[in-house]
Amino acid sequence: MLYDLIIIGGGPAGITAGIYAARQKLNTLLITKSFGGQLARKAVMIENYPGFEEISGLELIQKFEKHLRKQKIDIEKDEVIKLEKIKGHFLVYTASKKKFESKAVIVASGADPRPLEVPGEKKYLGRGVSYCVTCDGFLFKGKTVAVIGGGNSAFEAAIFLSQIAKKIYILESGEKIKADAKNQEMVKKTGKVQIIKNALLKEIKGNQFVNSLIYQNRKTNKNITLLVEGVFVEIGSIPATGFVKDLVNFNEKDEIKVDFETFQTKTLGLFAAGDVNVGKYKQIVTAAGEGAKAALAAYDYLQKINKKV
Amino acid sequence: MLYDLIIIGGGPAGITAGIYAARQKLNTLLITKSFGGQLARKAVMIENYPGFEEISGLELIQKFEKHLRKQKIDIEKDEVIKLEKIKGHFLVYTASKKKFESKAVIVASGADPRPLEVPGEKKYLGRGVSYCVTCDGFLFKGKTVAVIGGGNSAFEAAIFLSQIAKKIYILESGEKIKADAKNQEMVKKTGKVQIIKNALLKEIKGNQFVNSLIYQNRKTNKNITLLVEGVFVEIGSIPATGFVKDLVNFNEKDEIKVDFETFQTKTLGLFAAGDVNVGKYKQIVTAAGEGAKAALAAYDYLQKINKKV
Repeated sequence: MLYDLIIIGGGPAGITAGIYAARQKLNTLLITKSFGGQLARKAVMIENYPGFEEISGLELIQKFEKHLRKQKIDIEKDEVIKLEKIKGHFLVYTASKKKFESKAVIVASGADPRPLEVPGEKKYLGRGVSYCVTCDGFLFKGKTVAVIGGGNSAFEAAIFLSQIAKKIYILESGEKIKADAKNQEMVKKTGKVQIIKNALLKEIKGNQFVNSLIYQNRKTNKNITLLVEGVFVEIGSIPATGFVKDLVNFNEKDEIKVDFETFQTKTLGLFAAGDVNVGKYKQIVTAAGEGAKAALAAYDYLQKINKKV
Repeated sequence: MLYDLIIIGGGPAGITAGIYAARQKLNTLLITKSFGGQLARKAVMIENYPGFEEISGLELIQKFEKHLRKQKIDIEKDEVIKLEKIKGHFLVYTASKKKFESKAVIVASGADPRPLEVPGEKKYLGRGVSYCVTCDGFLFKGKTVAVIGGGNSAFEAAIFLSQIAKKIYILESGEKIKADAKNQEMVKKTGKVQIIKNALLKEIKGNQFVNSLIYQNRKTNKNITLLVEGVFVEIGSIPATGFVKDLVNFNEKDEIKVDFETFQTKTLGLFAAGDVNVGKYKQIVTAAGEGAKAALAAYDYLQKINKKV
């Protein structure tokens, strides 16, 4: 089957694109590993998506997914591994070896957590190392854990963990904390969090599970061991754009370059919305807005090429 | 008092900008005649704002307004009539002769209904002539009315009126109906709506209230009288940008030119989000996304100028 549009990704951008595409009566397929995108990893309540004064990431995802599923749209739970454009049509290949074809594509695959790339990180993944505090935090009741990173997501992770863990270290590699004033204040209020600056993580150690980490004090160059049973990595994200390759131009952060009015990439009929693109401001409501614009632009593109045929 | 930011407008763009600005701890004033913007005139249920499968315009406005009022932000119910930039500060003048000052401004004043500009239109405003079917529709129970226009908003107005009025004419000046297939289908289903194409409205007549209209059949050039007690004008909108004047560049539709990443206009510190700008796609969720981006860009701008001082 030849689809009008394939949407890759199930976060706020992909879901909104799906709602808009279906309502424009485009024959649409949405492919995603899971629903929610970065929202699923959100450790504190969401207070800035207009219409909901306070809502958990999980609850908002459920509302989004339900809204999407009310539309006439095909959904595949799968991972896209390759995208090609051949003779004006897009071919989308998935991890489970399926192939789909469409006239237009919206890439809304979001971003994945950025790994530390230190010894022990891979070995202890799922055995003390986690990239998702809302997924794994509850395993650390009464324990001592570390959060790596000094931005808002690290601080929000620490706030979340303060309800569960006994003690939390925040390790920031630089001199300056980037988390905003409100988050710093809330972390302080917990009375459970110790912030260590200039701390460069060197290794995660353990037996069957994590039992410690080693960091270097960047001022004294001394290596210091901390006894922790959990390590939460919150040092940012990398756009999930590996499968697009030559069809788009990237910036230095591997984000996809787009026209900010239509969200079209350098390839006609190929759009990129939400965290995957070079946009400066990455919020739930901005991703949703971009998803809507990309879907309407894809509709305009399809009208144009269908007239030519 | 010198504000960090003044937001002009209380629709989805202005409200979202307000939520974001307040959360960034900007000292913010929002000035609007009323809340809702174009949303308040929406005649059918909203089904494309992600998170709400189906919600009335009024209900969504109330949620937005409540969300905004939860923030630390000043709100003035007033109309902005003039905006100036003098010595790096913005001066905002209102209809009730107040003057406010700020370092940055977001214009999110939306759009007003486009008038017909025919004899009788002004005379019978509020006495049979209306630009808002959700506001005034209920006055026409069991009566015969006309909707002027052939786009989605005209068809949605007719669908709304079909629950109230006895008979509805839709007068479209051209040969082609622009409303989408779904709306045309729903209008047909009502069994109450007669569509008249090539109908150029010439005059609205009446005694104390509207009792008829005259249109010209553009094919035969004949003038024809229709007996109607209500005339709903749905021929599009014009951006509410009269007060900005020389501070921005306009396109041919009087929409404000912006950079689509930051929504900044040609004047530093002056932003325009939502229906007022040249953006092609004007939706609730896109306006909200633009409001968020403009507020974050205003925050960045303020950080930069505050460092210089």
